Amino acid sequence: MLRAMVKVYAVIMAGGAGTRFWPASRVLRPKQLLPLAGQSGEVLLAATVQRLAPLITPDRVVIVTGEPLANATAAAVPEVPRAQILCEPAPRNTAPCIAWATSVIEAMDPDAVVAVLPSDHFIANSAEFHRVLERAIATAALGHVTTVGIVPTRAETGYGYIELGAPLASAGNASNTGAMSVLRFVEKPNLERALEFLNGKRHLWNAGMFFFRARDMHALVGEHLPELAAGIAQIDQASSTANAATVLKNIFPTLPSISIDHGVMEKATRLAVVPGNFGWSDVGSWQSAWELGNKDDHGNALEPDTIAIDTTNSLVRTLGTTKKVVALVGVRDLVVVDTDDAILVIPRDRAQDVRMVVDALKARGKTNLL
Amino acid sequence: MLRAMVKVYAVIMAGGAGTRFWPASRVLRPKQLLPLAGQSGEVLLAATVQRLAPLITPDRVVIVTGEPLANATAAAVPEVPRAQILCEPAPRNTAPCIAWATSVIEAMDPDAVVAVLPSDHFIANSAEFHRVLERAIATAALGHVTTVGIVPTRAETGYGYIELGAPLASAGNASNTGAMSVLRFVEKPNLERALEFLNGKRHLWNAGMFFFRARDMHALVGEHLPELAAGIAQIDQASSTANAATVLKNIFPTLPSISIDHGVMEKATRLAVVPGNFGWSDVGSWQSAWELGNKDDHGNALEPDTIAIDTTNSLVRTLGTTKKVVALVGVRDLVVVDTDDAILVIPRDRAQDVRMVVDALKARGKTNLL
Repeated sequence: MLRAMVKVYAVIMAGGAGTRFWPASRVLRPKQLLPLAGQSGEVLLAATVQRLAPLITPDRVVIVTGEPLANATAAAVPEVPRAQILCEPAPRNTAPCIAWATSVIEAMDPDAVVAVLPSDHFIANSAEFHRVLERAIATAALGHVTTVGIVPTRAETGYGYIELGAPLASAGNASNTGAMSVLRFVEKPNLERALEFLNGKRHLWNAGMFFFRARDMHALVGEHLPELAAGIAQIDQASSTANAATVLKNIFPTLPSISIDHGVMEKATRLAVVPGNFGWSDVGSWQSAWELGNKDDHGNALEPDTIAIDTTNSLVRTLGTTKKVVALVGVRDLVVVDTDDAILVIPRDRAQDVRMVVDALKARGKTNLL
Repeated sequence: MLRAMVKVYAVIMAGGAGTRFWPASRVLRPKQLLPLAGQSGEVLLAATVQRLAPLITPDRVVIVTGEPLANATAAAVPEVPRAQILCEPAPRNTAPCIAWATSVIEAMDPDAVVAVLPSDHFIANSAEFHRVLERAIATAALGHVTTVGIVPTRAETGYGYIELGAPLASAGNASNTGAMSVLRFVEKPNLERALEFLNGKRHLWNAGMFFFRARDMHALVGEHLPELAAGIAQIDQASSTANAATVLKNIFPTLPSISIDHGVMEKATRLAVVPGNFGWSDVGSWQSAWELGNKDDHGNALEPDTIAIDTTNSLVRTLGTTKKVVALVGVRDLVVVDTDDAILVIPRDRAQDVRMVVDALKARGKTNLL
């Protein structure tokens, strides 16, 4: 019913680099191109596209990535038309990315509703995700810039929060969607505030999912980020000419580098949020990968041919061309990752410190391992 | 002076299989063919031959190994004449090995003194080793079957011991060699007895080093193991005929499978022992490899390109064709070994349990990893 009323497009942001999954993640093989979506074996980007498909078919998906990742991205999601894989000539944060992708979609369909989604998250409950998305899309179709906020399950200090306002009763039909107004976006809190947020039940995690009519975002960027709007307009005007690539290459790197949160969301009125509770994870580290992995009776998430003796709560991932047999004896809470040129051994609770390895490799000039 | 008086040959026993260095050690790449001799990069067998060279040149070295290891053994010690690499058609413990090699040497030189040495031990102090060997050879040249016993440095329960008797004063010149008579060979003790041995200073470790005139061993085998002597005589008689290989292949597997300790030493009289204190290790496990490795300020024995952050007292060995970078964060007392097809992660104090991995691989039918 909903889908008959509005034409919905997805913008999947797939430009991330990320070093938190080294040695699996590299400059040219970032997190969204890694098979971290549970045991499916799919890379996260492909899982994202396939999860959307019942609501938004791949021919209405636009992916934004960086030039060096273009081919790997296209190979990961062959069902998405190649012309809809947009390559930023330089990374300029999320506002230029979303503004550009929105202008491309607006040119295809001026009445489009756009769902902006990250490429590298994990969602356990697809059916519930679809229900929440339908509510968010319906709310956006009424003219609200809408976000999906994740119902917190712990006092997380690593995410931004969205403070809930009143239900959107005044918005007529939107009341059917369970959407709430947004009081404010809140920066990453300290632990004390995060505990307050968790107990107060009036704050949701900002998971970077945004829904809007293309024309509404167009207007908001014009109002709050006029310099960005002007640049996008130039790119847009050249887009069907022989100069398209040159203009993009010249203009895009000059666009203001700002996030959509700071540049637009925090300034916009008529904001809405739909609470979501669908087994979400941002897959932030090897610790998350262990949490999401299929585990045996000893809490180990292993490869099929791993030998684990007196081993508990550990993660093994073999991502090399040659799948090596990993043998663990007498270890616990350990992460072991094998790739073609590097092996990582780190306790789960130190998983964030993978960046220290990346820093050490940089310091030693081992760019081939980055 | 000594070397001018007697012609000394070495028999290096290199037939061992051994699973304690899995995944580095395999059926076709046993411990003596692994580079475990400290940081030299040499395999243990090559280090053994080179260590002997100032006393016993490679042209007087006989190596006994198994048929499947012949080529790898020859490649490891190209300085040893190929004809002196003897291949047992089947493993029959040390008595047949030593009796056969002795008969080969006796045919070359009836007056030869033979030094039997393991191929897979580590010796830190070569100069002292040479001094001890000269004393043992001089004692053997006087007609004593002589062993070198290692002065214990701990209450080890994993080795056999040699109980010292009186100095060999009655043996005339042998008194110059520091040799003692042997009261008895003692089986592996329990911890209580091992402590008594350590404190009593009358017991030495049996390190499997034996020295004798070829003709003396010939006579002892004839006396105590007549069946073995008869078999060796058949092999010996055929050795310069066209049937040599066939006779060896038919006879050798029928020889009694018994150790030189049980078969000869424990029954012989005129036994002598020279105490040795030259930084000996039997390199029994990855724990030993760590002990012998060059360590950094944090007690880590690493590869040159290992990244170690907050890591102490750990061992990393990368033995694959592709030398991978291993990154360790926040681990201690850990062993990580990479090979072409398998990775081992095990705490140092569990190093003996590598055999549990080998057993598990056998149980899963993964013979390609054994």
